[in-house]
Amino acid sequence: MLYFIRDSKYKDVWDAWIMFLAIVAGIEIPLRLVLQYPESNFVFAMDLVLTLFFTLDVLINLIPVASGNEAHLPKKHPLNLKYVKTWFTVDFIAAFPFGWFLTGLPLDATHGVKAIRLIRLTRLLKLAKMVPLIRKWRDVLNLNPSVFRMLLFFFLIFFAAHWIACGWIALDTAPLKDDLVRTYLQAIYWVFTTMTTVGYGDITPTSNIQIIYAMFVMIVGVGTYGYVIANLANFLGNIDTAKIDFSKKMAIVNAFLAYRDIPPQLEKRIRAYYAYIWDNRLDHDEDEVIGDLPDSLKTEVALFLRKPLISKVPLFREASTDFHHEVVHHLNIHVYMPGDNVVVKGDTGDSMFFISKGNVAILDANNKETMAVLGEGSFFGETSLLRAQPRNATVRALEFCNIYSLDKLSFDRLLQRYPDFKTAIERISDAREHELTGEYKFPR
Amino acid sequence: MLYFIRDSKYKDVWDAWIMFLAIVAGIEIPLRLVLQYPESNFVFAMDLVLTLFFTLDVLINLIPVASGNEAHLPKKHPLNLKYVKTWFTVDFIAAFPFGWFLTGLPLDATHGVKAIRLIRLTRLLKLAKMVPLIRKWRDVLNLNPSVFRMLLFFFLIFFAAHWIACGWIALDTAPLKDDLVRTYLQAIYWVFTTMTTVGYGDITPTSNIQIIYAMFVMIVGVGTYGYVIANLANFLGNIDTAKIDFSKKMAIVNAFLAYRDIPPQLEKRIRAYYAYIWDNRLDHDEDEVIGDLPDSLKTEVALFLRKPLISKVPLFREASTDFHHEVVHHLNIHVYMPGDNVVVKGDTGDSMFFISKGNVAILDANNKETMAVLGEGSFFGETSLLRAQPRNATVRALEFCNIYSLDKLSFDRLLQRYPDFKTAIERISDAREHELTGEYKFPR
Amino acid sequence: MLYFIRDSKYKDVWDAWIMFLAIVAGIEIPLRLVLQYPESNFVFAMDLVLTLFFTLDVLINLIPVASGNEAHLPKKHPLNLKYVKTWFTVDFIAAFPFGWFLTGLPLDATHGVKAIRLIRLTRLLKLAKMVPLIRKWRDVLNLNPSVFRMLLFFFLIFFAAHWIACGWIALDTAPLKDDLVRTYLQAIYWVFTTMTTVGYGDITPTSNIQIIYAMFVMIVGVGTYGYVIANLANFLGNIDTAKIDFSKKMAIVNAFLAYRDIPPQLEKRIRAYYAYIWDNRLDHDEDEVIGDLPDSLKTEVALFLRKPLISKVPLFREASTDFHHEVVHHLNIHVYMPGDNVVVKGDTGDSMFFISKGNVAILDANNKETMAVLGEGSFFGETSLLRAQPRNATVRALEFCNIYSLDKLSFDRLLQRYPDFKTAIERISDAREHELTGEYKFPR
Amino acid sequence: MLYFIRDSKYKDVWDAWIMFLAIVAGIEIPLRLVLQYPESNFVFAMDLVLTLFFTLDVLINLIPVASGNEAHLPKKHPLNLKYVKTWFTVDFIAAFPFGWFLTGLPLDATHGVKAIRLIRLTRLLKLAKMVPLIRKWRDVLNLNPSVFRMLLFFFLIFFAAHWIACGWIALDTAPLKDDLVRTYLQAIYWVFTTMTTVGYGDITPTSNIQIIYAMFVMIVGVGTYGYVIANLANFLGNIDTAKIDFSKKMAIVNAFLAYRDIPPQLEKRIRAYYAYIWDNRLDHDEDEVIGDLPDSLKTEVALFLRKPLISKVPLFREASTDFHHEVVHHLNIHVYMPGDNVVVKGDTGDSMFFISKGNVAILDANNKETMAVLGEGSFFGETSLLRAQPRNATVRALEFCNIYSLDKLSFDRLLQRYPDFKTAIERISDAREHELTGEYKFPR
Repeated sequence: MLYFIRDSKYKDVWDAWIMFLAIVAGIEIPLRLVLQYPESNFVFAMDLVLTLFFTLDVLINLIPVASGNEAHLPKKHPLNLKYVKTWFTVDFIAAFPFGWFLTGLPLDATHGVKAIRLIRLTRLLKLAKMVPLIRKWRDVLNLNPSVFRMLLFFFLIFFAAHWIACGWIALDTAPLKDDLVRTYLQAIYWVFTTMTTVGYGDITPTSNIQIIYAMFVMIVGVGTYGYVIANLANFLGNIDTAKIDFSKKMAIVNAFLAYRDIPPQLEKRIRAYYAYIWDNRLDHDEDEVIGDLPDSLKTEVALFLRKPLISKVPLFREASTDFHHEVVHHLNIHVYMPGDNVVVKGDTGDSMFFISKGNVAILDANNKETMAVLGEGSFFGETSLLRAQPRNATVRALEFCNIYSLDKLSFDRLLQRYPDFKTAIERISDAREHELTGEYKFPR
Repeated sequence: MLYFIRDSKYKDVWDAWIMFLAIVAGIEIPLRLVLQYPESNFVFAMDLVLTLFFTLDVLINLIPVASGNEAHLPKKHPLNLKYVKTWFTVDFIAAFPFGWFLTGLPLDATHGVKAIRLIRLTRLLKLAKMVPLIRKWRDVLNLNPSVFRMLLFFFLIFFAAHWIACGWIALDTAPLKDDLVRTYLQAIYWVFTTMTTVGYGDITPTSNIQIIYAMFVMIVGVGTYGYVIANLANFLGNIDTAKIDFSKKMAIVNAFLAYRDIPPQLEKRIRAYYAYIWDNRLDHDEDEVIGDLPDSLKTEVALFLRKPLISKVPLFREASTDFHHEVVHHLNIHVYMPGDNVVVKGDTGDSMFFISKGNVAILDANNKETMAVLGEGSFFGETSLLRAQPRNATVRALEFCNIYSLDKLSFDRLLQRYPDFKTAIERISDAREHELTGEYKFPR
Repeated sequence: MLYFIRDSKYKDVWDAWIMFLAIVAGIEIPLRLVLQYPESNFVFAMDLVLTLFFTLDVLINLIPVASGNEAHLPKKHPLNLKYVKTWFTVDFIAAFPFGWFLTGLPLDATHGVKAIRLIRLTRLLKLAKMVPLIRKWRDVLNLNPSVFRMLLFFFLIFFAAHWIACGWIALDTAPLKDDLVRTYLQAIYWVFTTMTTVGYGDITPTSNIQIIYAMFVMIVGVGTYGYVIANLANFLGNIDTAKIDFSKKMAIVNAFLAYRDIPPQLEKRIRAYYAYIWDNRLDHDEDEVIGDLPDSLKTEVALFLRKPLISKVPLFREASTDFHHEVVHHLNIHVYMPGDNVVVKGDTGDSMFFISKGNVAILDANNKETMAVLGEGSFFGETSLLRAQPRNATVRALEFCNIYSLDKLSFDRLLQRYPDFKTAIERISDAREHELTGEYKFPR
Repeated sequence: MLYFIRDSKYKDVWDAWIMFLAIVAGIEIPLRLVLQYPESNFVFAMDLVLTLFFTLDVLINLIPVASGNEAHLPKKHPLNLKYVKTWFTVDFIAAFPFGWFLTGLPLDATHGVKAIRLIRLTRLLKLAKMVPLIRKWRDVLNLNPSVFRMLLFFFLIFFAAHWIACGWIALDTAPLKDDLVRTYLQAIYWVFTTMTTVGYGDITPTSNIQIIYAMFVMIVGVGTYGYVIANLANFLGNIDTAKIDFSKKMAIVNAFLAYRDIPPQLEKRIRAYYAYIWDNRLDHDEDEVIGDLPDSLKTEVALFLRKPLISKVPLFREASTDFHHEVVHHLNIHVYMPGDNVVVKGDTGDSMFFISKGNVAILDANNKETMAVLGEGSFFGETSLLRAQPRNATVRALEFCNIYSLDKLSFDRLLQRYPDFKTAIERISDAREHELTGEYKFPR
């Protein structure tokens, strides 16, 4: 069964259970040490459970990991040597039931009980294992690192507060009151009053040792709390990095608009542009981020990002995978606002265009009348590239449009390498040429 | 009438009114719950008003938005389906007068009143609607986001403080005193004493539940307050981004001046230069900010920024709009300090200049005497471009001057495209050539 | 006399004196209002002095500024119109002795005195003038802006604390004790106890109005204090920007060294290099900072920075100012460590070198023996440029050397433009050629 | 002996000992001044030790430093003049036993003792020397500057707290209690209660002077403590700069992945790539960091970083040092993921490759079968460069591979300069050509 747990997904569940036990022990053991409540059946059961599962955990970890898919040559050892060298000692001490051995010794009642309680603190060593486990879970759960770190910090603060409170109770020279809940509550209340620097002063240290302890809590605890709170702002600020970068950019744009007294009408259009860019996730951050990835990953990311376009443009959809892999690196996105000219009649054409979103109008010779409207998946501008002619019509965006461009150099290389693509595009171009007298209907 | 409100600008006023009612309810309802003051006529009236307007708000929001100018194809539905799916439930619960139904039930006096008071907390759900409304207003009012966020935070802090104070009163085991104002004041005073970490200690928790509540306030409230204060610095710092960027630049310049022991005289002139740049908003941040705008917006911004120049230079003023649209992209601003040479006699000329601000002197052959002074709207240096000659005179700035340059490449392209511009500039240049013997008076 | 003050440097002294009076008034007037100490002769004298000087200040400011050196056309007005429109009203109210008029009115003793004291608060308006004055002084004194802002903040905090303390005394319902110093001290102590969030709790609000006041101080005062302290770190951090930038760079270098496990021996040399760079202020930040200055300032800065070199190299020292103005833009500094080769025999030479600091050795054909040592002000490498030959000897740095290089392109241009320079350098080069058989002694 | 200490490594030990004495004096002297405990033998001995060692320190520092290896011309002075001008006065006053002289004067018991105690405060001047010493140690110990500054700050905070506590005791008007430990503990406890803004209020100022002192501690002490805590976050954040930079990069990548909804499968591979990059320290930060180092250091760093490759590739290992020095600047590292094609059959080859880590497969003509596997130290792709042919086979990475590339230009230059290298590589290439029919086994 141990082998089964070791090699399966249940290892995570097992680790979580061990961690839960360690946390319970981390809370209960120091509490009993200072509050000295009697050793009830529950406590005895807990000790048994801890010994059992901590021991099982040692055994499970001693089993070497089965060779995964990465390793070519599985080298079998009877034991997980890495574990023996690192965590074994700590786990073993945490698992060993020292208390049971002490019970057998001829100790008098008072000191014996205290010694047993003290020796049980060895269990807390198990908590040290939280660090590697938590790191592992962070990677597995793929949590936002900031959120994760915040949770971790809060957890640590509460644990620290609990231990400090136990220490405060232990240092109190007055005999323990019967109301243990009250005693503990007042101690933890004092800890938080001090750590948050509220310092009501209704509970203050009296003995010298308490004064020293209080100073220690003030210096360390207050600092830690302040540090956590100071970082909280940082954490909250890093939850949505993309949004923050955009906000910063907008702050610069806003400052520019105000600084140069840009008229409200123009300002509104500039804002509308950026709002569209943000809503459609069209920030030009792609190259910056994927620039240092290896070629294979770059291609995959580019393919994924241009997939909507490829699936819309019949010319692309029917092409080979090799063609897809090549074309994606040469398509650059542009955003046009309503009324913007994508292509102006008479200009020399150095690229062709594929509409990913929105509608454009092909205007007549006087740039007045709309001769045709092209929608998603349509393309235009290929004639100039094929025949080295100037643009034969102006194309104007009717609304916000996402249009991919393909420059002449890449176009020519694609034509050369992929004869199918050449045939297809020439066929369509010829058809268009003939239709120019009749109704201007583009194949999509 | 509902349709009228829905589709008009009065919707904003209506939303503001609903928000005001929600805020009043958010303050009064928890207060009455804990202070248990008698159900006066005012309270009854308020409940009636809340029910009425919250219900009307549900009805208004159920009406679909009339098709605006963006949508080509208005798809009429009898109901605003998006609203039904999102805010409807929340709004309905907030509007429903649960209290009236409870009044009818056979409850005894004490519990009945308390239940009615508790059930009225459902009204507070309406406050959740603040978030989308506030976002909408931010965009409408075009408020500085930092100022806005600061206001919002302060508002939230005060609301939170009010609710925490109500909770503190509710947990107080001592019977309520007659002086309700005093009771409330002491509670909110305790909240602020704790949240600001002042912690006088004149009011401290006594019962266990109060101790736990106080700890909760310390952990959350203190953190929140600290977070707000920590962000305040950030907020204040971001109000004038342009100024801050300039300050940072000046800090670097100052560090450089100190680090290299630049003599005071030179230092003063460098400072004077930057002061002039700042006062005249001449930071070279234009390209950086508008670099990624679409061409149409870029042109409009450039046109706006160079409007003062265009209106001053007769050559530009009389040109066509097309010319304006093109020329603005090729004019680059330069600042000259008093005594700086804009053009040196004998140098090869690769650009011409348009004076936007200030006066320049044209010097004689020995660079000693001033032959002529050119002011705002004048231009010079065109002869070198037209005839490919070296500069025929030195031009020196008499004061701080803003001068736009137009390089040879752009100049030639403009000459080629705009024959009117060519004619005009050649005519002036010839005139100048002839006048060189007589008094040197430039046409403006 | 007023004219004299207006137009001279004494205006600053006058402004400082007025400011001092305003500060004294700002402290004393609210203090007397709340502590109600009797109107002694000192107080009467002070009031007289305030009225007198504040009135004089109004008169002085009404005089228009005499036309300075910038203005071509002094436009004389009998009054400083800008002042009349802006600060005049405020200054006039602050100067007007309202109290004296009230004294004449038939008011009973108690209310009259109080009214007089209240009306005197109008004097505090004068403090508003601190803002423009302080700004002016900052520019005049050329203080570090961070240091300056810190001083200003501390000043404001103390002023605010004083006024809050006066408010606290005013709200105290208990009759004033005889010990006014003690009363004031306790009030200001309470303010700082609250503002720093220490909150001992030995002085706490009792009446409702005091509770509200205390809350107000907590919310605003605590926030302000926290803001100042939070900014303090920022202030302190910005005092020496150059050092901080260097520290950041070193942090990156250190991280790199640790990250790549660079061996200690190499690490030490890298550190030594940076230490030398820092000690000699050789950070390559020059272009970045002065890059956007106008040409004239750029030249002056470059001239200043290379002055030590020019004064050391006889070839430069004896050249014309024009030559200096041109050469400084083409000289680039390089640092060589002991043992580094500046020039390797047989390499094609594309620049010549001028030694600004340190000694270099010219090695023999086998790069073993030192044939000659060149020191500060010497130059070498010109032969390769003049005759287009490869380097005829290896030159090695004997210690840390600052060497300026002049590339071939700039060298040729200088030769062409400055025949004197050409003659001089050719003469020296020829001389060296002949000496190569004998002792290798370079002219300096 | 003094000379011996001066010129040896023992100077550091000596300085440390002097510093230890200064710290002990800095703690004990103010403590005795306020607690007025009797002048025991220990105190007398301490005074003797301080006088002795501080005097010796003056003498040692007066000895000039022996000429080190940097100085060519040691200029012997009998005294260290720099020391005489700077620290001598301070050190002398700190060393001079003023107390002994006062003992001889006819002072009455009370005032005499007090004067002696006060005069001993001159010893504290020695503490000022900590600043230069600490700076020196920082450079010697090569400590992380952040860790160092944190330690220094904590040290200063504790020192300041001690002195403030002594001041508090001195201002206490009540007669000193017998329990001096308690007295001191309560004072230092009050200091920390105030500085951390906890402010319990169990110890509060009573006299006017104490109130003023408490205000001073609040304003300065609280600010200082807050400053230290605020910087703590900064310090902790700068301990591992490389890690932080990588985290920031990953945050940007993560934001991009989330923002564009990259599918999990692809996301996982991208993460795997970055994890590999981080684990193998392959961040492309090399050029950025070492870019401005002098050539000699750049070469050494590059040599060190490529040493593992050079030692693995026989072709390199056997080459001359000159060749190593040149080749390292032309080798660029690339990372390939499992399945990535390093070279594609038919492509034109513009570089050759050296495997530093991992295995690659040479595929057959159909890119299906593996013809050979190349491991660490192998190279490939040289045939295309030597014969200007297209790639004759596809090479695919079998796992994560670190492969260095050498581009054609550098390759040709190396061939030309190093005939041995040319011979070796041509021999291997020919051998491979012949083997292509038989088993494809590459020489390594």
